[in-house]
Amino acid sequence: MRTESDFIGQRKISKEALWGIHSLRAKENFPDTTPFHKEWYQAVGTVKQACYQTYLGFLKAMQDKFPDQTVSFQLLDSDLMRLLVDVAQEISNGKHFEHFIVSAIQGGAGTSINMNVNEIICNRALQLSGKSCGDYEAIDPFEHANVFQSTNDVIPTSLKVAIMQLLQDLETSINSSRMLVEKTESKFRNVLRQGYTQMQAAVPSSYDKLFSTYNNALSRDWWRISKCFERIKEVNLGGGAIGTGLSIPRFFIMEVVPNLQKLSGLPVTRSENLSDATANQDGFVEVHAILKAHAVNLEKMVTDLRLLGSDLFVNREVQLPQKQVGSSIMPGKVNPVIPEFIISVAHQVYANDMLISNLAGQGCLELNAYIPSIGNAILSSIKLLIAANKSLGEHLFKELTITPNPVEETILKNPSVATALSPYIGYHQASKLAKEMKVYQISIVEANAKLKLIQEQNLLQLLQPEELLKLGFRIGETL
Amino acid sequence: MRTESDFIGQRKISKEALWGIHSLRAKENFPDTTPFHKEWYQAVGTVKQACYQTYLGFLKAMQDKFPDQTVSFQLLDSDLMRLLVDVAQEISNGKHFEHFIVSAIQGGAGTSINMNVNEIICNRALQLSGKSCGDYEAIDPFEHANVFQSTNDVIPTSLKVAIMQLLQDLETSINSSRMLVEKTESKFRNVLRQGYTQMQAAVPSSYDKLFSTYNNALSRDWWRISKCFERIKEVNLGGGAIGTGLSIPRFFIMEVVPNLQKLSGLPVTRSENLSDATANQDGFVEVHAILKAHAVNLEKMVTDLRLLGSDLFVNREVQLPQKQVGSSIMPGKVNPVIPEFIISVAHQVYANDMLISNLAGQGCLELNAYIPSIGNAILSSIKLLIAANKSLGEHLFKELTITPNPVEETILKNPSVATALSPYIGYHQASKLAKEMKVYQISIVEANAKLKLIQEQNLLQLLQPEELLKLGFRIGETL
Amino acid sequence: MRTESDFIGQRKISKEALWGIHSLRAKENFPDTTPFHKEWYQAVGTVKQACYQTYLGFLKAMQDKFPDQTVSFQLLDSDLMRLLVDVAQEISNGKHFEHFIVSAIQGGAGTSINMNVNEIICNRALQLSGKSCGDYEAIDPFEHANVFQSTNDVIPTSLKVAIMQLLQDLETSINSSRMLVEKTESKFRNVLRQGYTQMQAAVPSSYDKLFSTYNNALSRDWWRISKCFERIKEVNLGGGAIGTGLSIPRFFIMEVVPNLQKLSGLPVTRSENLSDATANQDGFVEVHAILKAHAVNLEKMVTDLRLLGSDLFVNREVQLPQKQVGSSIMPGKVNPVIPEFIISVAHQVYANDMLISNLAGQGCLELNAYIPSIGNAILSSIKLLIAANKSLGEHLFKELTITPNPVEETILKNPSVATALSPYIGYHQASKLAKEMKVYQISIVEANAKLKLIQEQNLLQLLQPEELLKLGFRIGETL
Amino acid sequence: MRTESDFIGQRKISKEALWGIHSLRAKENFPDTTPFHKEWYQAVGTVKQACYQTYLGFLKAMQDKFPDQTVSFQLLDSDLMRLLVDVAQEISNGKHFEHFIVSAIQGGAGTSINMNVNEIICNRALQLSGKSCGDYEAIDPFEHANVFQSTNDVIPTSLKVAIMQLLQDLETSINSSRMLVEKTESKFRNVLRQGYTQMQAAVPSSYDKLFSTYNNALSRDWWRISKCFERIKEVNLGGGAIGTGLSIPRFFIMEVVPNLQKLSGLPVTRSENLSDATANQDGFVEVHAILKAHAVNLEKMVTDLRLLGSDLFVNREVQLPQKQVGSSIMPGKVNPVIPEFIISVAHQVYANDMLISNLAGQGCLELNAYIPSIGNAILSSIKLLIAANKSLGEHLFKELTITPNPVEETILKNPSVATALSPYIGYHQASKLAKEMKVYQISIVEANAKLKLIQEQNLLQLLQPEELLKLGFRIGETL
Repeated sequence: MRTESDFIGQRKISKEALWGIHSLRAKENFPDTTPFHKEWYQAVGTVKQACYQTYLGFLKAMQDKFPDQTVSFQLLDSDLMRLLVDVAQEISNGKHFEHFIVSAIQGGAGTSINMNVNEIICNRALQLSGKSCGDYEAIDPFEHANVFQSTNDVIPTSLKVAIMQLLQDLETSINSSRMLVEKTESKFRNVLRQGYTQMQAAVPSSYDKLFSTYNNALSRDWWRISKCFERIKEVNLGGGAIGTGLSIPRFFIMEVVPNLQKLSGLPVTRSENLSDATANQDGFVEVHAILKAHAVNLEKMVTDLRLLGSDLFVNREVQLPQKQVGSSIMPGKVNPVIPEFIISVAHQVYANDMLISNLAGQGCLELNAYIPSIGNAILSSIKLLIAANKSLGEHLFKELTITPNPVEETILKNPSVATALSPYIGYHQASKLAKEMKVYQISIVEANAKLKLIQEQNLLQLLQPEELLKLGFRIGETL
Repeated sequence: MRTESDFIGQRKISKEALWGIHSLRAKENFPDTTPFHKEWYQAVGTVKQACYQTYLGFLKAMQDKFPDQTVSFQLLDSDLMRLLVDVAQEISNGKHFEHFIVSAIQGGAGTSINMNVNEIICNRALQLSGKSCGDYEAIDPFEHANVFQSTNDVIPTSLKVAIMQLLQDLETSINSSRMLVEKTESKFRNVLRQGYTQMQAAVPSSYDKLFSTYNNALSRDWWRISKCFERIKEVNLGGGAIGTGLSIPRFFIMEVVPNLQKLSGLPVTRSENLSDATANQDGFVEVHAILKAHAVNLEKMVTDLRLLGSDLFVNREVQLPQKQVGSSIMPGKVNPVIPEFIISVAHQVYANDMLISNLAGQGCLELNAYIPSIGNAILSSIKLLIAANKSLGEHLFKELTITPNPVEETILKNPSVATALSPYIGYHQASKLAKEMKVYQISIVEANAKLKLIQEQNLLQLLQPEELLKLGFRIGETL
Repeated sequence: MRTESDFIGQRKISKEALWGIHSLRAKENFPDTTPFHKEWYQAVGTVKQACYQTYLGFLKAMQDKFPDQTVSFQLLDSDLMRLLVDVAQEISNGKHFEHFIVSAIQGGAGTSINMNVNEIICNRALQLSGKSCGDYEAIDPFEHANVFQSTNDVIPTSLKVAIMQLLQDLETSINSSRMLVEKTESKFRNVLRQGYTQMQAAVPSSYDKLFSTYNNALSRDWWRISKCFERIKEVNLGGGAIGTGLSIPRFFIMEVVPNLQKLSGLPVTRSENLSDATANQDGFVEVHAILKAHAVNLEKMVTDLRLLGSDLFVNREVQLPQKQVGSSIMPGKVNPVIPEFIISVAHQVYANDMLISNLAGQGCLELNAYIPSIGNAILSSIKLLIAANKSLGEHLFKELTITPNPVEETILKNPSVATALSPYIGYHQASKLAKEMKVYQISIVEANAKLKLIQEQNLLQLLQPEELLKLGFRIGETL
Repeated sequence: MRTESDFIGQRKISKEALWGIHSLRAKENFPDTTPFHKEWYQAVGTVKQACYQTYLGFLKAMQDKFPDQTVSFQLLDSDLMRLLVDVAQEISNGKHFEHFIVSAIQGGAGTSINMNVNEIICNRALQLSGKSCGDYEAIDPFEHANVFQSTNDVIPTSLKVAIMQLLQDLETSINSSRMLVEKTESKFRNVLRQGYTQMQAAVPSSYDKLFSTYNNALSRDWWRISKCFERIKEVNLGGGAIGTGLSIPRFFIMEVVPNLQKLSGLPVTRSENLSDATANQDGFVEVHAILKAHAVNLEKMVTDLRLLGSDLFVNREVQLPQKQVGSSIMPGKVNPVIPEFIISVAHQVYANDMLISNLAGQGCLELNAYIPSIGNAILSSIKLLIAANKSLGEHLFKELTITPNPVEETILKNPSVATALSPYIGYHQASKLAKEMKVYQISIVEANAKLKLIQEQNLLQLLQPEELLKLGFRIGETL
């Protein structure tokens, strides 16, 4: 065991622990166990790596500018800084995550996240230098690991980095599932199906039309998410505690974000108003709302598919792939678990959305103290949506099959099809036809054979899928 | 009294009522009294006016094309159509709204809204033709008032029209309040104030910096809202029941949206996929989310101002305008009612947001049955936000005043100001200074006079507002 | 026009207006038009009536105790007080509501509600005394209409009165709809239906079993709501500004709640801790949560019924009553508008629930400033739920009919029925039977005729509804 | 590696894995990593243990009743059953949790939870019998581990068991924090403090009055939570797939819940209507709403304390304990992280509340498919609230100190104190006094010395804390 101390007192800490007293305090103060997102942890590493690299650049610029002069403040050693760059790289790669011991639900605007990482970086650097963990005289969590940084710029910036990285995965996964939807759409072109509004039979439609609505919705989602970067790419790194950059060299402020951009390959830019970027969180609200719009589309889509593929649907033409045993009592029962999973995800996203805007509205003056909960919710949503899209594509659309019933049964016997004739025989005649169909439960062809309202040949022509599905009717080919 | 009938039976209706049996059924079926938004009612009028005008165009095209020929379906009379255009114009102007008797909370995807307006149009047209209300042989709510329309295209389209019109007002009102914020920002440039993070004193800031965060937030909101049109401008008018346009002439489908565009002056366009535009409601989710982001910014801003202007704030420098008596017991008490109003509005918007996405996710196959509730919530939110911005500008920012306390008290005695010296005297010396200030409750100037860490002249220079507020420090003027 | 003034300045007000300058300020400060609930307005009248009656009792007690003595403070005139009692009674009856001009969404903890009523009371009393509106020298909104009251005790107390009155109506309406459910349950006892879990066929059930789940749910709701009174019956009337009763006579504090109890016929009692009752709003959160639990049950129930009665359900045995025309294009289409209305109500209640708890959590020290929005949301929810229950009973259950399909089709051909035999022929034999049924699409009787696994007579006995529906199987009649 | 198969195909599984093919399918179908609550896993073990014990009782009863007879169905071996009892006990103790591989967010009503546990039980029993994992001929996940059970009764029942167990801990933790509040209340009896409504100075109050509002709120929460058991104690165990108990012996249905009661020590009882208990989830909505009411009280309370202890509060009398370093830049900064943690918890609970009621409303006919998400959210909320209460008691109230400022500064100079004199010198004289105080910024004693409105001796008497704080004033000791 080693001993560490802070202004409250001393604590024993396991000799090999990379975390230190500040992490321990946080763990005790926030006795919850919701796991912190590893992606955010890694992004903190990336951001700190950019900071250390920038410091090295600063040292070089100082040397170039004032080769002989001593400056008014103590400069850190460039070897140490290079060591910190390496350690930050390890964090960025996800190493040492087992030493991150703070709950995702926590007090503070991320100080405990920042300090846990600072302690890991110090102690890991101490290890690599052949020193003991806790020897902060040599390498200090505040003065070295945190140099020219503040929780209030590092933590939101790293959150944005993590979000952007995950959003790229989400984009990919939406596009994959969308392409499978599109394939299905092409496959069932002009395959008629009964349309329904408010769960009651409406006029005829087709499977490709239905799938096209999903395709369009996913296209919009993909486009929206690709636009999200615009909304969160402005970071406040370099702004210090409240965006004024107090006591941070102008050189650092100007160089650190370009360095982060290079390092991460993400289009991060420095906010024009660092105080605004520190105090306001509406960008997260907006980005998450986009995620919610996608969740809404997912819910709508899989609710449809669950219904179409279910035992209780009258025209059971759609077969969802069977993915797992559905009952421990009833042999052979298979349930629509993929749609249910996706609906569960959607509702989790809705709940996260409420959490985020509630907390985003509770900023106070220079800062919003709820960045950890906001970040936790956004990252959860993105990861859940990636999982949902994977499941949608791989487990639902890839093997979805449709076995259309004879149109005679599903479409031509449904009185609503008579609507198609109203331009040609008039609304009242069409109503008569519909009534005849309903009363005698016969098809439109049979009913017309009795009532002789239109020539059978013309009728059959009008009942062709392409005719029923084309947009509006034309008069005399031209109007 | 007159008698009207439908497939359920007969009902007596007051002779002069412009509503009819379908409105009455709806009123009874949905025994709630939440008032329907007049703006939506008017927009239904506008949409129907475009439909009737398009019908007139259709008649003309038919005549041009087939001057001698009879067509296979009954054409409506052009005089009647011209009359309907006039009546629809009245609706569009807000007339006869007292005859709209259906609750905003209702079943159906808007059939009752559509039928109430259809009945008003018919009966008003009958009145103008010198006939009696209820004489539907002459003018029929279905065949005439609803010609080539469906609830499922008219109601969402008119909702979008109403939203776009109100969004224009919202844009204006945000911009007005933003300009008053900007004025305040300019007025208090470089007026120092103590910065706070997590309600604890942080480093110094200024009033203009704080107001600039509000200004930026409102600018983003304004920009976002101006982009909303893109998200809802695609309408499904002409799509009929499920977006297939079945039994509607191609001419009508092609012409009606351009006509609506001309009539309304709004950038409405026909959706490329009318089935998608009928089935999916994610556009509303997205637009409302933008409204929510704005509400979040409003809440953050007025929560700050309420705090800064309150009796419980330590440095009471901000005076909110006094707008009304605050207590019926304690004479002279005035409360921050404008911030409270705006916070109440924000939370109403959050609740509406949840409602909208919940219901938007519950579409089923060709349609979403909850358009009335979705529309009601969006229109409420926009109107509330317009009211909030008016109140914010007129009643809060216009007369807001600031009387800065001497910086000696608020800034120079606060140990956090020592942070500003750390680049020049080092972190540890700065800490000493801060400690001295805290222990003896003296200003940084007094403390330095004792400890002599920096020349007083230099110190006073560094404590100038412009120095404290500039972004980062520079070394030797160049680095 | 008359002129009124306050500390801000003077305003012209229509001569006949019962509202005054404080109402006008509020109307302008909160430029929204959400209508205030009349029930709350009336309850304010009731509460004030109790206050004036108590004042009369106080005068009498003073006279009895100190017949000759003058007391240290000015007593109000008993004739005036009696006049105020009468006017408060008018408010309580709903009169003069057109003079209540403040929006439901407002700043302040209800000062504007209180002052609008105070002004109406004064001006109405002035009218009745033959004086002019606005002659506040004679009768004053603060000193007279508001005597011994504070917004902070009158407004929450009146809200609780309004809630309790409406909850009584809700209780009645739930019980009415529940009784209609129960009737339906009795009517279809042992009528078999296919059971479904996760939308897939499960084992057989019956209509009365399904309706019994609705009956039980509504019974719980009714019981819960009847228990709600316990949670809000404690009022803070008499507590003054912050529950300390400062400058209010002990006599008044002790007598006013019993008087209110008598007057309203409601079980209101004085809170043991008036400061707690003024500062904390968890009671409203709890009561509304009960309303939400009811809304959840309603949504579940009508979603089922909508499905069972819809065109898309395979075994269309349930016929929902047809309540209104469903389409303006497709003749004869009828939609499940009653379930849709009720689902819309449920979601409105969910949104209100979120609003209420969000705002209830934002109390600050002695008070919660959001009572107006909280109250508005609760009253809306109760009224919506009353409407939903009325609609459920009158328009859905009263005329609901069921026409069972032959069990041969719906039950005996469904392989899941084989589960019923497993105790007698073993799980594996039962599985064989199920497979045979599935492959040849035959009934269990036909399949057994081929496989001869159980004597037909025994099989038919086991397939009796009572056998299939009794709870578990018994071995040898006793175990 | 071993090979397992189901109706979809075969999969290789690690030889030592206690999970099997059904768990693997679920893991792949729901590619999310939200951790499942261990408490629920353990409760599934407890419930299954009760089932196996009941089976043993059933075997014994069969033997007693029919010693010589063979029954019509295959009985399981009692030695095997005793082995399963032991293994279920291990699960109940939390063992083998690393073999539970299904995400908390999943499709299905818990089949994957049930099957993962069934597979662990089987394979662990196989291990203990010296057989290989996967040898399901010997011990089968369906026929043995799941005997007389259904996912639809085991999973909700075990959820209720887990909830009740955690609620006991929550009760304890609320009571602990409440007692610390009460201690603080006693300690600061009659210590005056300025009261505030709407953030503006109101009349005087005291610290014990404020703490008494917290104490009362926590008492109500404690009482509410102790009543929650009533709302979820009715379980559907024994009901089988849809609560009809089909193919389960009556003996088992009657005995299994009493056995579970004994085993768990919880007041579980069998629901009178097992179909209702399977289909409706309003009990969870109600219980979680109670948790939300508690969260609301916590948020209100710690928001107050954060404010009172913050740098920005004018009368800084309250010192929150310092629990961790607050800034990595500004030395000595300490932030109110405990209140922030608790507010974060509260908002997480609000979001969970929305999730739960949304999903609870989406039951369909015999079942609600979202039990996994509902359960996950409730268990999260309870655990978060336990953590919040621990933190509140240990880290906030235990070391909270108050250093009152001189009343001359905080109370007697505040004009609102003049309200206390109005019963004695009249409202108008009191107003004069207040005005004098405000204009000259003097205390009420000084102002009275100038205006001589009341004898100083009497004034000083009236300004005693007990006088200012007693409920109302009395006239002549008796009235």
